[in-house]
Amino acid sequence: MRTRAAVALEPGKPLEIMDVNLEGPKAGEVLVEIKATGICHTDEFTRSGADPEGIFPSILGHEGAGVVLEVGEGVKSVKPGDHVIPLYTPECRECEYCLNPKTNLCQAIRATQGQGLMPDGTTRFSMLDGTPIRHYMGCSTFANHTVLPEIAVAKVRQDAPFDKICYIGCGVTTGIGAVINTAKVEIGSRCVVFGLGGIGLNVIQGLRLAGADQIVGVDINPAKRAMAEHFGMTDFVNPNEVEGDLVAHLVELTGGGADYSFDATGNVQVMRTALECAHKGWGESIIIGVAPAGAEISTRPFQLVTGRVWRGTAFGGARGRTDVPKIVDWYMQGKIEIDPMITHTLSLEEINKGFELMHEGKSIRAVVVY
Amino acid sequence: MRTRAAVALEPGKPLEIMDVNLEGPKAGEVLVEIKATGICHTDEFTRSGADPEGIFPSILGHEGAGVVLEVGEGVKSVKPGDHVIPLYTPECRECEYCLNPKTNLCQAIRATQGQGLMPDGTTRFSMLDGTPIRHYMGCSTFANHTVLPEIAVAKVRQDAPFDKICYIGCGVTTGIGAVINTAKVEIGSRCVVFGLGGIGLNVIQGLRLAGADQIVGVDINPAKRAMAEHFGMTDFVNPNEVEGDLVAHLVELTGGGADYSFDATGNVQVMRTALECAHKGWGESIIIGVAPAGAEISTRPFQLVTGRVWRGTAFGGARGRTDVPKIVDWYMQGKIEIDPMITHTLSLEEINKGFELMHEGKSIRAVVVY
Ligand SMILES: [Zn+2]
Ligand SMILES: [Zn+2]
Ligand SMILES: [Zn+2]
Ligand SMILES: [Zn+2]
Repeated sequence: MRTRAAVALEPGKPLEIMDVNLEGPKAGEVLVEIKATGICHTDEFTRSGADPEGIFPSILGHEGAGVVLEVGEGVKSVKPGDHVIPLYTPECRECEYCLNPKTNLCQAIRATQGQGLMPDGTTRFSMLDGTPIRHYMGCSTFANHTVLPEIAVAKVRQDAPFDKICYIGCGVTTGIGAVINTAKVEIGSRCVVFGLGGIGLNVIQGLRLAGADQIVGVDINPAKRAMAEHFGMTDFVNPNEVEGDLVAHLVELTGGGADYSFDATGNVQVMRTALECAHKGWGESIIIGVAPAGAEISTRPFQLVTGRVWRGTAFGGARGRTDVPKIVDWYMQGKIEIDPMITHTLSLEEINKGFELMHEGKSIRAVVVY
Repeated sequence: MRTRAAVALEPGKPLEIMDVNLEGPKAGEVLVEIKATGICHTDEFTRSGADPEGIFPSILGHEGAGVVLEVGEGVKSVKPGDHVIPLYTPECRECEYCLNPKTNLCQAIRATQGQGLMPDGTTRFSMLDGTPIRHYMGCSTFANHTVLPEIAVAKVRQDAPFDKICYIGCGVTTGIGAVINTAKVEIGSRCVVFGLGGIGLNVIQGLRLAGADQIVGVDINPAKRAMAEHFGMTDFVNPNEVEGDLVAHLVELTGGGADYSFDATGNVQVMRTALECAHKGWGESIIIGVAPAGAEISTRPFQLVTGRVWRGTAFGGARGRTDVPKIVDWYMQGKIEIDPMITHTLSLEEINKGFELMHEGKSIRAVVVY
């Protein structure tokens, strides 16, 4: 079949909207009509050429929601008509990782996914001239139709709006999951969140959901304050307005340090601050942000020996097929909010405008609706 | 009263054996006759002048065992005749830290202890000319008699030999506790221990006790191998004999990485290797060793984002008054061994020889018996 897609032809160039060929699903795969997709910093990381592992030409996009149109041989967990969210972290429920309750990093299709290929080592997309186009993060939601492994789709309820729940495929789950799955924040905790972009806002609402007593947000942009307060932030700290040491300020503000701190900036200096403002004896710091290639985190080992714990999280520690449908339910029940974060809605033809809005800091999330 | 002590008069000098004055216990304190004390690298760190927080003159020593001779006003948990082990990490059972199950770092007397003083801000020791002598780590076991806060003594059974259980006051509890309290190692785990000195050997026997399936020991000194095997090491790795990358070698040897790794070297480069050889998705690395002042640990945040956890431990996460008596029981029951680690027994007059043996790498633990 043919479908419409925004193709990343080469690093650093705007995406090009064009018709592409899409092969049908092979065994264990499903064909999905994408109804909406978010535009994420991770897409931009690859589009811009900053990602050393970026492959071109490819169809980016990993925050989608859509409808199953066709399933390949042996597919049992979904059928045509099901609503699904593509998963860049799949859940095979059979590999060593899926069988270990401590991790969500399913390795079943890792090697091929990293190469932009389906599990059989081939690509379903190609240019009209036949040139293969790589998949991206196993999703490629910047195409109106895409093919995904069965283990990489989460079946969700049918009454949820695609243009909102697509964000559960990335930022919402990452932020809320970091609180619930990775940190396992207890009721009454005092927490600090660095970076009040989309991920940070979702950490904040995750903390509110978990019953945190204090939710300190840290950002150098004072314009972020109002939205963060809307999602549950109790205290705002602008590092540029703190006299003296930021760590000391945060330790005092939290009455001894954060029970849990979260870095949602990707800045390795901020990651250090996040660790060091954690409470002596038990404070845990969770790295969510993705650092530039080659950047390193550092601290004195004394920080750990005196009881702080340094962790990271990927996709919020969520097992997608199991956890994503629950988060969709929470949204539909009003336990969490997504609507205020979807600041812009665009057509596929306008997708490059979505990247501009991101650069200008004007959007929390721009969503393409097909 | 007067007692015999080895006094650190100034940094870098041998200890001087002399009579000193010792005031009796004030309210909440106990007078203990020390029967035996280990000589530890931490004492040497301060004696040598390397410790930026070292205070002189002082009476070092923190790995003791002895008998209560007299108790001050209000002391209820011990009485004269009780056998005790001094605790450099006290357990008041009332402070915010003692009441939080996640930590053992009782803060009740931290400020004064750090200054070498009793909780009332004074010292019990003085030279015969009246010059005050500071306490050390709240213990000062290099004196035949010492005064300790009630919350800094663990009451233990009376049939345990002082010259062996004194080591439970530091290295034994630190190593075994790092496994049991901090890492909480599960049966069947695969583990790597860096540094096969006294702490490393105790980590190894802690892992054996916890039912680890694989216990890899890493040390550049092949002479450490036999003793480590005696305590339960299953695989020995000498980094100088590994061709290529040590991390890759350890990941392969453990079938994907260590479920738990332990640094017992204090070397920040080794700490990084220990983290990076931990299993993707769930491996935890525990820093036990004390790094030189100002040294920093580093890694790429990717190591944490892909599921590794970086922790530290102090006194093995043990709550001394509660946990130390249990470890004494384990020793008496034959669950753990201490005797082969006590390689030398000295008189107080020979204490400086104990430091020499340490420097020459000839002792695991030298113990002074009064
Ligand atoms: Zn994303
Ligand atoms: Zn799996
Ligand atoms: Zn010691
Ligand atoms: Zn306490």
